[in-house]
Amino acid sequence: MAMYVASRRFSGGSAVGALRYAACTFWRPYSTSFREERDTFGPILVPSDKLWGAQTQRSLQNFDIGGERERMPDPIIRAFGVLKKCAAKVNMEYGLDPAIGKAIMQAAQEVAEGKLNDHFPLVVWQTGSGTQSNMNANEVIANRAAEILGHKRGEKFVHPNDHVNRSQSSNDTFPTVMHIAAATEVNSRLIPKLKQLHTSLNSKSIEFKDIVKIGRTHTQDATPLTLGQEFSGYSTQVKYGVDRVLCTLPRMYQLAQGGTAVGTGLNTKKGFDVKIAAAVSDETNLPFVTAENKFEALAAHDAFVEASGALNTIAASLMKIGNDIRLLGSGPRCGLGELILPENEPGSSIMPGKVNPTQCEALTMVCAQVMGNHVAITVGGSNGHFELNVFKPMIASALLQSVRLLGDASASFEKNCVRGIQANRERISKLLHESLMLVTSLNPKIGYDNAAAVAKKAHKEGSTLKEAALKLGVLTHEEFDTLVVPEKMLGPSD
Amino acid sequence: MAMYVASRRFSGGSAVGALRYAACTFWRPYSTSFREERDTFGPILVPSDKLWGAQTQRSLQNFDIGGERERMPDPIIRAFGVLKKCAAKVNMEYGLDPAIGKAIMQAAQEVAEGKLNDHFPLVVWQTGSGTQSNMNANEVIANRAAEILGHKRGEKFVHPNDHVNRSQSSNDTFPTVMHIAAATEVNSRLIPKLKQLHTSLNSKSIEFKDIVKIGRTHTQDATPLTLGQEFSGYSTQVKYGVDRVLCTLPRMYQLAQGGTAVGTGLNTKKGFDVKIAAAVSDETNLPFVTAENKFEALAAHDAFVEASGALNTIAASLMKIGNDIRLLGSGPRCGLGELILPENEPGSSIMPGKVNPTQCEALTMVCAQVMGNHVAITVGGSNGHFELNVFKPMIASALLQSVRLLGDASASFEKNCVRGIQANRERISKLLHESLMLVTSLNPKIGYDNAAAVAKKAHKEGSTLKEAALKLGVLTHEEFDTLVVPEKMLGPSD
Amino acid sequence: MAMYVASRRFSGGSAVGALRYAACTFWRPYSTSFREERDTFGPILVPSDKLWGAQTQRSLQNFDIGGERERMPDPIIRAFGVLKKCAAKVNMEYGLDPAIGKAIMQAAQEVAEGKLNDHFPLVVWQTGSGTQSNMNANEVIANRAAEILGHKRGEKFVHPNDHVNRSQSSNDTFPTVMHIAAATEVNSRLIPKLKQLHTSLNSKSIEFKDIVKIGRTHTQDATPLTLGQEFSGYSTQVKYGVDRVLCTLPRMYQLAQGGTAVGTGLNTKKGFDVKIAAAVSDETNLPFVTAENKFEALAAHDAFVEASGALNTIAASLMKIGNDIRLLGSGPRCGLGELILPENEPGSSIMPGKVNPTQCEALTMVCAQVMGNHVAITVGGSNGHFELNVFKPMIASALLQSVRLLGDASASFEKNCVRGIQANRERISKLLHESLMLVTSLNPKIGYDNAAAVAKKAHKEGSTLKEAALKLGVLTHEEFDTLVVPEKMLGPSD
Amino acid sequence: MAMYVASRRFSGGSAVGALRYAACTFWRPYSTSFREERDTFGPILVPSDKLWGAQTQRSLQNFDIGGERERMPDPIIRAFGVLKKCAAKVNMEYGLDPAIGKAIMQAAQEVAEGKLNDHFPLVVWQTGSGTQSNMNANEVIANRAAEILGHKRGEKFVHPNDHVNRSQSSNDTFPTVMHIAAATEVNSRLIPKLKQLHTSLNSKSIEFKDIVKIGRTHTQDATPLTLGQEFSGYSTQVKYGVDRVLCTLPRMYQLAQGGTAVGTGLNTKKGFDVKIAAAVSDETNLPFVTAENKFEALAAHDAFVEASGALNTIAASLMKIGNDIRLLGSGPRCGLGELILPENEPGSSIMPGKVNPTQCEALTMVCAQVMGNHVAITVGGSNGHFELNVFKPMIASALLQSVRLLGDASASFEKNCVRGIQANRERISKLLHESLMLVTSLNPKIGYDNAAAVAKKAHKEGSTLKEAALKLGVLTHEEFDTLVVPEKMLGPSD
Repeated sequence: MAMYVASRRFSGGSAVGALRYAACTFWRPYSTSFREERDTFGPILVPSDKLWGAQTQRSLQNFDIGGERERMPDPIIRAFGVLKKCAAKVNMEYGLDPAIGKAIMQAAQEVAEGKLNDHFPLVVWQTGSGTQSNMNANEVIANRAAEILGHKRGEKFVHPNDHVNRSQSSNDTFPTVMHIAAATEVNSRLIPKLKQLHTSLNSKSIEFKDIVKIGRTHTQDATPLTLGQEFSGYSTQVKYGVDRVLCTLPRMYQLAQGGTAVGTGLNTKKGFDVKIAAAVSDETNLPFVTAENKFEALAAHDAFVEASGALNTIAASLMKIGNDIRLLGSGPRCGLGELILPENEPGSSIMPGKVNPTQCEALTMVCAQVMGNHVAITVGGSNGHFELNVFKPMIASALLQSVRLLGDASASFEKNCVRGIQANRERISKLLHESLMLVTSLNPKIGYDNAAAVAKKAHKEGSTLKEAALKLGVLTHEEFDTLVVPEKMLGPSD
Repeated sequence: MAMYVASRRFSGGSAVGALRYAACTFWRPYSTSFREERDTFGPILVPSDKLWGAQTQRSLQNFDIGGERERMPDPIIRAFGVLKKCAAKVNMEYGLDPAIGKAIMQAAQEVAEGKLNDHFPLVVWQTGSGTQSNMNANEVIANRAAEILGHKRGEKFVHPNDHVNRSQSSNDTFPTVMHIAAATEVNSRLIPKLKQLHTSLNSKSIEFKDIVKIGRTHTQDATPLTLGQEFSGYSTQVKYGVDRVLCTLPRMYQLAQGGTAVGTGLNTKKGFDVKIAAAVSDETNLPFVTAENKFEALAAHDAFVEASGALNTIAASLMKIGNDIRLLGSGPRCGLGELILPENEPGSSIMPGKVNPTQCEALTMVCAQVMGNHVAITVGGSNGHFELNVFKPMIASALLQSVRLLGDASASFEKNCVRGIQANRERISKLLHESLMLVTSLNPKIGYDNAAAVAKKAHKEGSTLKEAALKLGVLTHEEFDTLVVPEKMLGPSD
Repeated sequence: MAMYVASRRFSGGSAVGALRYAACTFWRPYSTSFREERDTFGPILVPSDKLWGAQTQRSLQNFDIGGERERMPDPIIRAFGVLKKCAAKVNMEYGLDPAIGKAIMQAAQEVAEGKLNDHFPLVVWQTGSGTQSNMNANEVIANRAAEILGHKRGEKFVHPNDHVNRSQSSNDTFPTVMHIAAATEVNSRLIPKLKQLHTSLNSKSIEFKDIVKIGRTHTQDATPLTLGQEFSGYSTQVKYGVDRVLCTLPRMYQLAQGGTAVGTGLNTKKGFDVKIAAAVSDETNLPFVTAENKFEALAAHDAFVEASGALNTIAASLMKIGNDIRLLGSGPRCGLGELILPENEPGSSIMPGKVNPTQCEALTMVCAQVMGNHVAITVGGSNGHFELNVFKPMIASALLQSVRLLGDASASFEKNCVRGIQANRERISKLLHESLMLVTSLNPKIGYDNAAAVAKKAHKEGSTLKEAALKLGVLTHEEFDTLVVPEKMLGPSD
Repeated sequence: MAMYVASRRFSGGSAVGALRYAACTFWRPYSTSFREERDTFGPILVPSDKLWGAQTQRSLQNFDIGGERERMPDPIIRAFGVLKKCAAKVNMEYGLDPAIGKAIMQAAQEVAEGKLNDHFPLVVWQTGSGTQSNMNANEVIANRAAEILGHKRGEKFVHPNDHVNRSQSSNDTFPTVMHIAAATEVNSRLIPKLKQLHTSLNSKSIEFKDIVKIGRTHTQDATPLTLGQEFSGYSTQVKYGVDRVLCTLPRMYQLAQGGTAVGTGLNTKKGFDVKIAAAVSDETNLPFVTAENKFEALAAHDAFVEASGALNTIAASLMKIGNDIRLLGSGPRCGLGELILPENEPGSSIMPGKVNPTQCEALTMVCAQVMGNHVAITVGGSNGHFELNVFKPMIASALLQSVRLLGDASASFEKNCVRGIQANRERISKLLHESLMLVTSLNPKIGYDNAAAVAKKAHKEGSTLKEAALKLGVLTHEEFDTLVVPEKMLGPSD
């Protein structure tokens, strides 16, 4: 009968073990039937309906941290599929049995497509090299490939280390999948959505190009601009955001694969690194290359700190835009009221009729989390020791969350808010013409000090600028009307 | 036939609507049968097997941000159960129909026990007041209570607003559940695990109290101490960590409930706030009280920023401890090697026999994330406007993640690492006796400058301190042996 | 003739050395006359008019980082004065020659009073233990004490190590002065100013208690409250801020002194730690005690991370308050305009008459820096190794900057802004009565759905609530007037 | 006689005013003689020996925050000199009286050269637009230019607004000087020092290319690499750091000048923006251009958030390098001891002979501060409102501090540490040959599981790998010697 070994320190009969399993967070949805798997630590029981092996099982038991919510992000799992498929392909060039190689490729493809997600139960909070998730991938692919070849799970007809992980180490595979996952998500999820947001803001900028409104600096009334000009600032911020994240990709496209354990490439073959980068590039249609220095690629994750810095900048931009839009849309009667935001849902459970800038709120909450994740990534990135940074899963998880949240929130904000924004032309016009700041256009004519006197007089007396100017005798009626024309205050003079 | 209205901007026949549903991220696992629910925006289709109503459904469609991984944390859902149960209880005192009140209490109890988790599909990234999750709770409880009373879902026999949300606003319920969830999690999940870690570190401190070892300052050899003294530092850090988080609880125990929409308590009754705090206190066995100032309680979440500051301090402590333990356990042959850490799993997929300080790694990754979440919470906390902070779900989610991760990782680290740490006495002794820093004990006898000369000579010549001291003629053989006794260097002299 | 040795790696004649000095950032203001000082590294030239010695001089040359702006903060220098005075006093009880002891006390008193600040040229960015600043203090006090006793500088009649630093190590003195400086600054600079701000906000809360205004949630119009209630939220935030920082002081009052090099207290005497804490307590009138665990006190600075967490919370509070006040004071004609802020200076170099909320701006900038410093302190605090954290000067400097900036900015904000805030009663009243959110008071009478319909109708038609309610026939004229009374919407009902 | 008006709220006789001045922090070093200056707020007394005017004086009195340590950074003052010189030059093309224009250029040149630094007393914590520092520059240059033309201070023969600030607003000048200062400092102070550090690390990489050493992953022994390879990782990190900061400069080279108050360019002339950017480019030899969107350039400082993100990445890199080097240099007898770091000063005030990695400590403290400043900049950058971000001085100050500290610390670290690092070849060799991790080279021959068994046996028995392999019978003596050759483990095989 199979011995059950939960870990080296705890021994027990299989009945007890199985009972303990039943109480474990992760086990409720799983079967109560087990098979034995084995690694260098000895045998261990694994649920029969799962493809993972001994090392995955140990990690599950040793890292009961955070629950299912904290599972390794899907893009990492899918990137493992891509990588292991490419590794098998290249390994066949270097002598891997083609039958085994092809089965690995097929199994890996299933992982890449997300079909085997249920077989990746490990959480982010495991070993800092991601070794356990690499072994999870190796074990699942090995068992699945063995099945494809007509063998049973656990028999290691396809060996997780010797076949699936051939010429690889966790220390180079995990950073490789980090880069594949991040680059893929940035390209597929973030950039298109930012571009869409940019397009939408830009359209609004054009739509609003003739609406003259009061400017606000220090939150105080200032000289006028058009609503289109105001939106052009937002649109430019988002455009630069795309540039910023693109700027960081050259270093993200560098793959650590081929560095193996410490960066030297021991136990791999010359050329393996270049070939596998090319294979990944083919598979993903992204310009991945082999890292020029594998020591840096394992020991540091500066490329993630840098990319997160770009996301952090985008978050700062979107926070500004979200704040502006909710304030410009504040009201309906006691706020600034210049924008009419789309109404998507009832706003209050107690105040009927209230409609809130909820998309701005979701967006700005996302921005705050991205700023926080950036600090987490920075702390993790700065804490590498010697040949290996061991904050890898956290860095990957935080960055991927930031990418996804920024992308999704940008799309949601674009679709459910920006696209439907309308200008409240009546309100905008009313505010503009009440403003005292049109006085600025008098500066070139009557000088700063006189202009200030006019503004102050009007403010004090609650009068219009014109009344004040005439009372002070600094201008005639006609001069005032010629000079103070908001539509002429929108740019430099000839 | 029921009209389907996805939102005010999109109209369409129900067939199209149902098709669109089928493609939505959230809908794959759900039924394809729908019923109509209705809110102030009009009718909308909801999956028949779900208890939620129109407002939840709108949020699902309007906030497709992050996917299931980003669902509102369970402790918030459970706290809603607690709060709504208490609200019904108190509302009955103020005239709520007892039949309805009791049904609400029963339904809310099911929510509090996590039995209806599947009916809370909303993500964190929604309206910043948490209104949609409050309505989710109101809708689920109303429909469930109606069922209990023999009515159908969607009929509003029990009304989500008028009955379940009676005397409440999202603006006071959501901060209330934030406080309930955080205080509960801190008390049940974090403090016991920190105390357990403290106990374990303290036990090690006692176990190791007679093991004299070299001290290290600036990472360089320094004067000796015992391994027990070294662990007493760690143990003290964790003990203070518990104190720190306890210090913040008085403000966490203040509940906003009774403030309703803006803090005034409009539409609630005098005494409601005190009674509901008492009810929550009874229900949770925690000393909740009504907030002394409801305006602060809605408009700011300083209590969360403060509590997160305590978690951040604990993270700094645990980062230090985790780093020390992995460095002291480094080796087996080329590191410091003073500690033998438990072996829980194979360490490397390429380097056989390698065993890594994986628990330290999981712990320190958690610490980095907690530091990041703290910045997210700070940014969210500082960005309230007027009567309401609208970063509530993000603040709650980040804090609850920090609490859970710190608690779980502390427990895992304690169980799978600290408890099994052994001292490598042989190695410790060897390093101690090779050290030059024992020279410090000569200071009082021969003065600082002479002592320095002895150390420098030994260092330069690769000799022992004694040899160097004798050669320099600053001490006799006997004097040296009397003065340089590591065991006498462990404390102040008489 | 004395050899000049700039460092061990560079040898050169004194002429060359003196020339090089002339080019050094720090040397321009100093004399060109030098004397020789000496330490275990050998002789080195020091400006004749300065009291410092060899180790200070080496640090000056080895750490040319940041320039004068980055000098060790004054409160640290003054705390060294306090500590060295107390150490001499206690050392006399343990046998220090009273003549020397008294001279040290006199010299140290001069340091404590800031009279010798010019003799402390070192920057924060030096050795992470603060050793060089400790030696700076030892050297200055030794030379000054020697002068007091009629001896010459550099002769070491009073020895910096054997006399001034007696029974001490940098590793316990620097954390001790960190705690003295921080506790002193918090008590003298921060808390009184926060209390003053609280008092002022509280006075405004009372002054404004009868001014009913529109509330704002999600930046949107909400139910009314009084301006006094709104300010009571701010006042409560500041009051809790004081509580928060006070909560952290018990751990700040623990002094490391007596731990010497690694926490064991080697080379000091039993009871020295308790006596010196008592002496410091006497000298400062603050309840300092000896740290219960000296290992923790040297190896970690959790007390600073914790205190900084309290400052970070205060920063979040003040950011919120500053933002609200500038937005409520926005205008004069195109903003919310509910508050009239004091005018302290011309606001714009181009827009005459413009007056800006500059005190809010200075305050919120300070808050951002405090949040940043908090991360710096957290990173530094988490990075200790073994028996010593070597981020001490950075941690101290960042915290002291945060304390000073928060204190000064609170005082400036209080004096130049809060104290002079006036309510714009006319504007407040106008906004209030235009609002649709008074509809909320209809909920208990006509139910949520009907109330929502009234609000939506009024919004759509630009009419008043009353008009809409009458048109919809849900209320009579009299009922409306009885129910919708803002003054009755300021609290729960009986 | 001139009335003295300290501010609008406080009136008093000049005698009292002068007395109050005497007590003010900023006034001690200044003369007690005063002249009257005047702005739109009225007259105010200014020290006779200072060139500043009324608005500077008001700011001094209204913002007593932080003291002299917090003065606006020098690079900002110098950049104001550059900008005002260029503005006068371009303004002459647009009609500014050439006599006045030339005098302004001469005065501005003095500011650019730092000759008038004593006339810039304002602190960072002022109005968030930097208006007061812009006026400080305008006032100083106006008074100085007037003197050059033979007129008296305070007479406004050259007017600070109408002449010096002509065609400008604080809102475009301050962001312009921010960009000039940052780009100049990055180019002159940071990049050359990073390049120097890169060169030095690269030289070490070459110098150490034949020294085979044990690798370390998870802080545990791993497969070998050369010390040169290890340093190549550091060198690559620094090289990429230079790339990263260069990547951000295109957006830093965009100047806001010409946007005036809100970005429209009101009150300036067409072409002014392009001409002034060209003039600044000529003056600084840096490729400044006019910002393509002035609204973005005033309302956001994303370019600073982005640049700070690059600095933050560099900080993460240098933290890693600094940590590695101090750990590899730990000892001298009880640490890793592979590197011998230069001894620059005595290390301990109590432990004679101790030499510490102080340059690593200064460097890593700087890194922590840079990470903190990054958060401050992010918070400031995200908090703009409408047409103007009012966290400008804080953002500028924090970034300039980060640039300076990183540059100076890199230079100090390079000069006083990296350059003098020696390899401890004996120690390195000893550790290498004791290691068990050479076992990895057996994988391809005997498989992972057998290799693991060899390593575990050797570990358990304290024997060599060879002894264990022979005992287990998996290899012959000859096979072992052929396979286990560290020098053959440094790269992939053919």
